[in-house]
Amino acid sequence: MVNQAPIPVVVNGAAGKMGREVVKAVSQASDMTLLGAVDRNPEYNGKDAGEVAGLSEPLEVPITDQLEPTLALATQERQLGVMVDFTHPSSVYDNIRAAIAYGIRPVVGTTGLSIEQIQDLAEFADKASTGCLLIPNFSIGMVLLQEAAVRASQYFDHVEIIELHHNQKADAPSGTAIQTAQMLAEMGKTYNPPSVEETEKLPGARGSVADEGIRIHSVRLPGLIAHQEVIFGAPGQIYTLRHDTSDRACYMPGVLLAIRKVTQLKSLVYGLEKLL
Amino acid sequence: MVNQAPIPVVVNGAAGKMGREVVKAVSQASDMTLLGAVDRNPEYNGKDAGEVAGLSEPLEVPITDQLEPTLALATQERQLGVMVDFTHPSSVYDNIRAAIAYGIRPVVGTTGLSIEQIQDLAEFADKASTGCLLIPNFSIGMVLLQEAAVRASQYFDHVEIIELHHNQKADAPSGTAIQTAQMLAEMGKTYNPPSVEETEKLPGARGSVADEGIRIHSVRLPGLIAHQEVIFGAPGQIYTLRHDTSDRACYMPGVLLAIRKVTQLKSLVYGLEKLL
Amino acid sequence: MVNQAPIPVVVNGAAGKMGREVVKAVSQASDMTLLGAVDRNPEYNGKDAGEVAGLSEPLEVPITDQLEPTLALATQERQLGVMVDFTHPSSVYDNIRAAIAYGIRPVVGTTGLSIEQIQDLAEFADKASTGCLLIPNFSIGMVLLQEAAVRASQYFDHVEIIELHHNQKADAPSGTAIQTAQMLAEMGKTYNPPSVEETEKLPGARGSVADEGIRIHSVRLPGLIAHQEVIFGAPGQIYTLRHDTSDRACYMPGVLLAIRKVTQLKSLVYGLEKLL
Amino acid sequence: MVNQAPIPVVVNGAAGKMGREVVKAVSQASDMTLLGAVDRNPEYNGKDAGEVAGLSEPLEVPITDQLEPTLALATQERQLGVMVDFTHPSSVYDNIRAAIAYGIRPVVGTTGLSIEQIQDLAEFADKASTGCLLIPNFSIGMVLLQEAAVRASQYFDHVEIIELHHNQKADAPSGTAIQTAQMLAEMGKTYNPPSVEETEKLPGARGSVADEGIRIHSVRLPGLIAHQEVIFGAPGQIYTLRHDTSDRACYMPGVLLAIRKVTQLKSLVYGLEKLL
Repeated sequence: MVNQAPIPVVVNGAAGKMGREVVKAVSQASDMTLLGAVDRNPEYNGKDAGEVAGLSEPLEVPITDQLEPTLALATQERQLGVMVDFTHPSSVYDNIRAAIAYGIRPVVGTTGLSIEQIQDLAEFADKASTGCLLIPNFSIGMVLLQEAAVRASQYFDHVEIIELHHNQKADAPSGTAIQTAQMLAEMGKTYNPPSVEETEKLPGARGSVADEGIRIHSVRLPGLIAHQEVIFGAPGQIYTLRHDTSDRACYMPGVLLAIRKVTQLKSLVYGLEKLL
Repeated sequence: MVNQAPIPVVVNGAAGKMGREVVKAVSQASDMTLLGAVDRNPEYNGKDAGEVAGLSEPLEVPITDQLEPTLALATQERQLGVMVDFTHPSSVYDNIRAAIAYGIRPVVGTTGLSIEQIQDLAEFADKASTGCLLIPNFSIGMVLLQEAAVRASQYFDHVEIIELHHNQKADAPSGTAIQTAQMLAEMGKTYNPPSVEETEKLPGARGSVADEGIRIHSVRLPGLIAHQEVIFGAPGQIYTLRHDTSDRACYMPGVLLAIRKVTQLKSLVYGLEKLL
Repeated sequence: MVNQAPIPVVVNGAAGKMGREVVKAVSQASDMTLLGAVDRNPEYNGKDAGEVAGLSEPLEVPITDQLEPTLALATQERQLGVMVDFTHPSSVYDNIRAAIAYGIRPVVGTTGLSIEQIQDLAEFADKASTGCLLIPNFSIGMVLLQEAAVRASQYFDHVEIIELHHNQKADAPSGTAIQTAQMLAEMGKTYNPPSVEETEKLPGARGSVADEGIRIHSVRLPGLIAHQEVIFGAPGQIYTLRHDTSDRACYMPGVLLAIRKVTQLKSLVYGLEKLL
Repeated sequence: MVNQAPIPVVVNGAAGKMGREVVKAVSQASDMTLLGAVDRNPEYNGKDAGEVAGLSEPLEVPITDQLEPTLALATQERQLGVMVDFTHPSSVYDNIRAAIAYGIRPVVGTTGLSIEQIQDLAEFADKASTGCLLIPNFSIGMVLLQEAAVRASQYFDHVEIIELHHNQKADAPSGTAIQTAQMLAEMGKTYNPPSVEETEKLPGARGSVADEGIRIHSVRLPGLIAHQEVIFGAPGQIYTLRHDTSDRACYMPGVLLAIRKVTQLKSLVYGLEKLL
């Protein structure tokens, strides 16, 4: 990073739980500089982004509720900037269009975009030759787990997934577990060919059946945080991949990686796995 | 065990998978002697019980298909004997009555007795003042797990069970997992009070519901053997009990314990947990 | 708890990490009332204990740096009170004496008392017929694990402990793992009789040897929090006990239990296990 | 495999533990035929290889102690054959040379060849344009674990290995765990930069230090079989890879894969990972 100007970063949603982590991570990265912090919650207007994020020293970057002037500011830097967006499904589409219009590259963790919106944004980014990253899951560990699971599916025909979360989580299975199952299903094989006729003495015991015969079991208990286990079996052996999340900090290496990579892109890319 | 005559033991079902293990274990216990070996499979008639069990040296105890003469033999020892029975549901009731009639104490791992049969045998043992042990599960580790789970249920309100077995197992959940759930249910409380309204996006994801709200999840994969995990959760903590079985050898400490204990009993006792 | 006056509780060290959790837990317990909050850190003097603890509503209990007037206040309630102390090794002895002198029962999580100090306090509590609880570890889950481990040691001769903590922890093994090993060692047997002559190709591979042959392995990684696993082995089976801590909230059931129990005691008691 | 003659296979060491499994696996593979079975143990001379392997039906392939005539036989088939060798360090070099001399491709699980011998055999196979596979570990699951671990090392700086084996294993750490650590070490980075100054209150608690700062912990208990766990940590997350072996059957998919692949090779290849 010698002789290179630091990457100017605007954090949109800077007062949210993820936004605060991003403010901290960006301010501690030697090759980045926090240029602006935006949050539409008026309660934080004018407060220092660093103090809101829980840093002991202020960053001298006040939070504003105005995105466009902040983007305009970022265009005046020696190096073109990046907008990290952890906001809301209702505003994320407009945020991304605005950023691209200013030549600022979006790194987007906000979910809720429709397929049509994503296609539309991809065209827009293409025309503008501007990198844009849509990343539903910034956890590098989870992406590695899914990649290793896909790899193992070439050699194992039997697999079940157990995901375990705190009991405040309303839906089961978790979105990430369903995604893992889909990635395995796309390998073009059917899993878990039965060797006996199974009977459930209590309905649901054998879990849910996702695509291509993959079973998912969802455990919900207070004291759990967010965990996923993919268990492959073959005669005489078990191969287990497990990921445990205990803190939002775990997403920051993925966010920083995305900020660095997006500056080298000229179009829209979906998914952290494309960057690894 | 100084100056004490060794306990004479008759193994009934000596050529079966469990019987062979019992022959090995008894022949290696310094306070026991293998007096007789019975198996109704004619293929083994006259073969040495030790060689059938896979010992390198013969035990000079030929397998016979005649139970009663073998029991009669055992009554002639200095110390009264024990019959270990791993046979078949169709013959176990008669075997037990025969043993008690000869004053030989039965240690029974064969399942399939009806409640009426058990009551009947209890009366018969009582009248004869003869110890008799019916033990559906000889695994000391599993009994300790269940005991620790019951203890933990006094302090934890949330619990789920995961049991994992090879994919040759047809029924789910496993009998032992259901038994653990029943023991917890008998503690007189309802588990897993919901904190949100749950939705199963894929049916069965949240497992089966046993008595009193306890969830059981059953995983079936080649490469697994027999495993049970009881997971208790409370805010900020998880307490997990796990038992893994990899070999029938694990039942032998329980069998030897039962042989030693039954000689001190005067009536029928059900379950290994009563002996610990 | 019908017709019963709530237990008045004074939290000493109310602005510390544990103290804040205690303030929250006591204020949410229907059979307790937060009567006073003390902290010697002048920064918090006069601030509301509930707001410092992160509650959304104030509790109308200002934090003070004066312990004795707060204890005096507690003596004027219909029911005699309890002081929960999470302060500092240098002040805990004096705090306990002061509380007992006022007839207030101490529940003490602060460590660092010498054996002589504990004996002295036990005499003092005896003379005053006042309950006093010294609890080095308020985690009910960990106490249950240790209890279950001691129980299992009667039937298993082989055991190893793995404890896993974040990499900010400087000492290894953890104090709690050493304590578990000591409790097992006190059972009067030697564990892990060797069956082969072992060679460490890399020194330290086989972990540390605590009393009576028990092995302890310490893993340190970022992302871990605080975990302990006690693994018992016998031919054909493994029995594992595991406790995972993810948040200080896990200590609160133990703190509330101690508050309720101390009001029924007339002398000093050491250790949460005595209350279960 | 339509219209393709089955691959003729000679099993050398057919009466050994691994050899028996290979006899079973080859006889059940539709694209292979067991052509010969060799074992230098005279006890098995003339016995049927299938019966020795525990199959219910004989394979009509008598075990012989003469390797070369059996290799000669294999050269007369429509398709050139493969020799699977699970014999002894003292004879494996000569076995391989003999096979290559007959144009039979060796698949070798026997360990103990020196680096010079391997180089020599590589030259010999090259000159003969004959495929030859030396495979120290036929477990596909373990190779996948090691591959996934190497991949994860690009994104995680902290890693420890726990390997768990039965207490008959004399050396620690296990060869496979050391191999995993070496593969990680070869990635050109130093792991586990310390964040505090660590103190071992009991020596060995923090395990052994392999190359580049990687820690290995070895657990030995009866009831364990063969298990390896690689734990990666980063702030807020843990990524764990685990492999459990419970039966030699787990090596057979690797053996069959090697038999199929070696027929397409013209030189010596070392390691199963080259075939995946």
